[in-house]
Amino acid sequence: MDFERYFEDRLQDLKDEGNYRVFIDLERRRGEFPQAGQTDGETKREVKIWCSNDYLGMGQHPAVLEAMHDALDRSGAGAGGTRNISGTTHAHVLLEKELADLHGKEAALLFTSGYVSNWAAIGTLAAKIPGLIVFSDALNHASMIEGVRHSRAEKVIWKHNDVDDLRAKLAAAPANAPKMIAFESVYSMDGDIAPIKEICDIADEFGAMTYLDEVHAVGLYGPRGGGIAEREGLMDRLTVIEGTLGKAFGVVGGYIAASIALCDFVRSFASGFIFTTALPPAVAAGAAASVKHLKSSQAERDQQKERVAEVRARLDAIGIEHLANPSHIIPVMVGDPVKCKFISDTLLEEFGIYIQPINYPTVPKGTERLRITPSPVHSAEDIDHLVEALGSLWERCKIARGPIAAQ
Amino acid sequence: MDFERYFEDRLQDLKDEGNYRVFIDLERRRGEFPQAGQTDGETKREVKIWCSNDYLGMGQHPAVLEAMHDALDRSGAGAGGTRNISGTTHAHVLLEKELADLHGKEAALLFTSGYVSNWAAIGTLAAKIPGLIVFSDALNHASMIEGVRHSRAEKVIWKHNDVDDLRAKLAAAPANAPKMIAFESVYSMDGDIAPIKEICDIADEFGAMTYLDEVHAVGLYGPRGGGIAEREGLMDRLTVIEGTLGKAFGVVGGYIAASIALCDFVRSFASGFIFTTALPPAVAAGAAASVKHLKSSQAERDQQKERVAEVRARLDAIGIEHLANPSHIIPVMVGDPVKCKFISDTLLEEFGIYIQPINYPTVPKGTERLRITPSPVHSAEDIDHLVEALGSLWERCKIARGPIAAQ
Ligand SMILES: Cc1ncc(COP(=O)(O)O)c(C=O)c1O
Ligand SMILES: Cc1ncc(COP(=O)(O)O)c(C=O)c1O
Repeated sequence: MDFERYFEDRLQDLKDEGNYRVFIDLERRRGEFPQAGQTDGETKREVKIWCSNDYLGMGQHPAVLEAMHDALDRSGAGAGGTRNISGTTHAHVLLEKELADLHGKEAALLFTSGYVSNWAAIGTLAAKIPGLIVFSDALNHASMIEGVRHSRAEKVIWKHNDVDDLRAKLAAAPANAPKMIAFESVYSMDGDIAPIKEICDIADEFGAMTYLDEVHAVGLYGPRGGGIAEREGLMDRLTVIEGTLGKAFGVVGGYIAASIALCDFVRSFASGFIFTTALPPAVAAGAAASVKHLKSSQAERDQQKERVAEVRARLDAIGIEHLANPSHIIPVMVGDPVKCKFISDTLLEEFGIYIQPINYPTVPKGTERLRITPSPVHSAEDIDHLVEALGSLWERCKIARGPIAAQ
Repeated sequence: MDFERYFEDRLQDLKDEGNYRVFIDLERRRGEFPQAGQTDGETKREVKIWCSNDYLGMGQHPAVLEAMHDALDRSGAGAGGTRNISGTTHAHVLLEKELADLHGKEAALLFTSGYVSNWAAIGTLAAKIPGLIVFSDALNHASMIEGVRHSRAEKVIWKHNDVDDLRAKLAAAPANAPKMIAFESVYSMDGDIAPIKEICDIADEFGAMTYLDEVHAVGLYGPRGGGIAEREGLMDRLTVIEGTLGKAFGVVGGYIAASIALCDFVRSFASGFIFTTALPPAVAAGAAASVKHLKSSQAERDQQKERVAEVRARLDAIGIEHLANPSHIIPVMVGDPVKCKFISDTLLEEFGIYIQPINYPTVPKGTERLRITPSPVHSAEDIDHLVEALGSLWERCKIARGPIAAQ
């Protein structure tokens, strides 16, 4: 077999479909975010980033950076080993305490990423609990799907955020089979939010454990940034809360928070936890500082809410349609990968605005979109500039508009 | 089902077998490595770490730390997105260039860890190349095994480092099926090294692609730290070389180096690459500095070789048996998890020496061991101290000795 030829053909297929991805090479600048440099071969330009998951700008927060500098000075670069073999430092232990506290759980367990936390935790629970059936929301993230795939456990997919369908499917399963309901709070591409309370009620009814991915909610919702479950007073009703340190917390890494026994079980059996170098102490220290800061500071969350509302209102005012949802994510639907990329390229080249086109496999084909994430570090001028650019582009490209909102 | 009870029972099983893992809580100290603080509840002690995979002490190298501090100042903490959605910074692009160059390949692709690189790259290649059969060395790392498991491709396990068995198994497979041979260069627990040339010869004979994990060799072997394949002039014969940035390079992260088309293919299709936050720019910058340094500096590699030889000779001189191998890893076999943990605990408590007991599932049951990894930062006094401690413990515990080497 000619492997090279095969790879090239499959890549050509992606290009033909408009689904080939071009990564934008950015120079993030501390203190200037969302402003960044962008390099494209010889071309260099200044851009405003409007699609980052550094939702609160914590990636440039002085408390986070100071903690990281300090830890580098104190402990050096890497952890030097897996968690078991010399790679557990005090920074890891403290971060896990911080996270357990954030979610009101007995314990937390740190992974190299949110992806690995879902894959390894769901994979291990579903593989090791004999006969477990996983009831998985239809729009769950790839990392959760991979966890179930790894486990080879039975999987039942229920309609997205549809509690009637969930109940029907639980009722149809053998009553004595152990069950897990796996879902997310904020779905990152549509920005809709799961009915957590109803799902917990159903879980109780059927004795199911609940596994909630709060990746796009931690740091952002709840009085201490514990996520939607915290905001709704439901943290104690969830068996596992999973989160990331790479989005609102601005660093990198992932975790689960749960009972001591559950965390210890995953710690002891999850291949993806055991057989990998621990995160650098400086990463753990930076993440801990970020979590700690957002436990007490409301300013970032409040400002983010304002900016999101402002962008929505301004888009409404010129009839640029966006998906209605109760979160901080503003999806502007385009519905075609080539057109979506064209808009994104033009925004970048002509307006210095960077919004990555979101295409398959991140979203289903035909639902390609621009996904806008306003943050506290976007200024009023940034918003003006964004709205003007989108307006002029919608005009030029004759993109259909919605009703113009009353001012 | 009582989930808590189930977890507790399984943990009790581990405890009963002696396989329950206790993580040692360390305070790594930049500039003092291998010296570290260790906390155990109320007890604090000073320890020398003898089991780190920061094999060359690069985790405290000034060039690495300076690059990380600079990148933190310049770009902030996290990448703020997946590689596709605002998470590619210039530091990532430069690191990938550095890694492609290290291995003499057209391209390289960065992952959040070596674990994820194996899982995602093998998983994607084996799932997406129709009919691919993976010929996997019997002792391959968990991350490679998980990659094959994910792919659901056909897997044929060949006897560890046994080229006759490999040839026989390739010959027995359908001639026209696409094939991949997956193996490691330095096997980390026994320290033995694969016959790469013979394996490549066989691969050519059967038109198989070769996937080589050099995780325990990159930075350490070859004139520029390209690994065993570099040392033996074989890099161009391997389809994929995989490595980590978390061991000899002292930071964290993983990668593959291969053709442009292969890297682009994995980049475009691997869930574990696509759906996860990119490594922090500071991590990428630190890793790049480490790779660059070890491309031109031999001092660390030379000193490590001396230290390894010295420790081996000193153990031989007092009859403490260790597995003979041609690498930098010194496994002292104990063969029982409880005894192994007892020795390790005593070394820690009485001698301030930290060598984690290696037990199941990292090694097969019955092959529990202490795994000693001398580095350039271990001094002559550190070696004296280690050898005396082991000697007195072997005496006290009446552990069988081998012949005393002639001095
Ligand atoms: C819902 C969800 N879960 C998990 C992840 C993975 O988290 P991380 O980026 O920390 O790997 C992501 C995105 O990356 C996500 O959107
Ligand atoms: C052979 C081998 N491959 C891959 C890995 C994973 O690399 P990382 O620690 O960067 O995840 C390890 C150890 O951790 C290993 O021993």
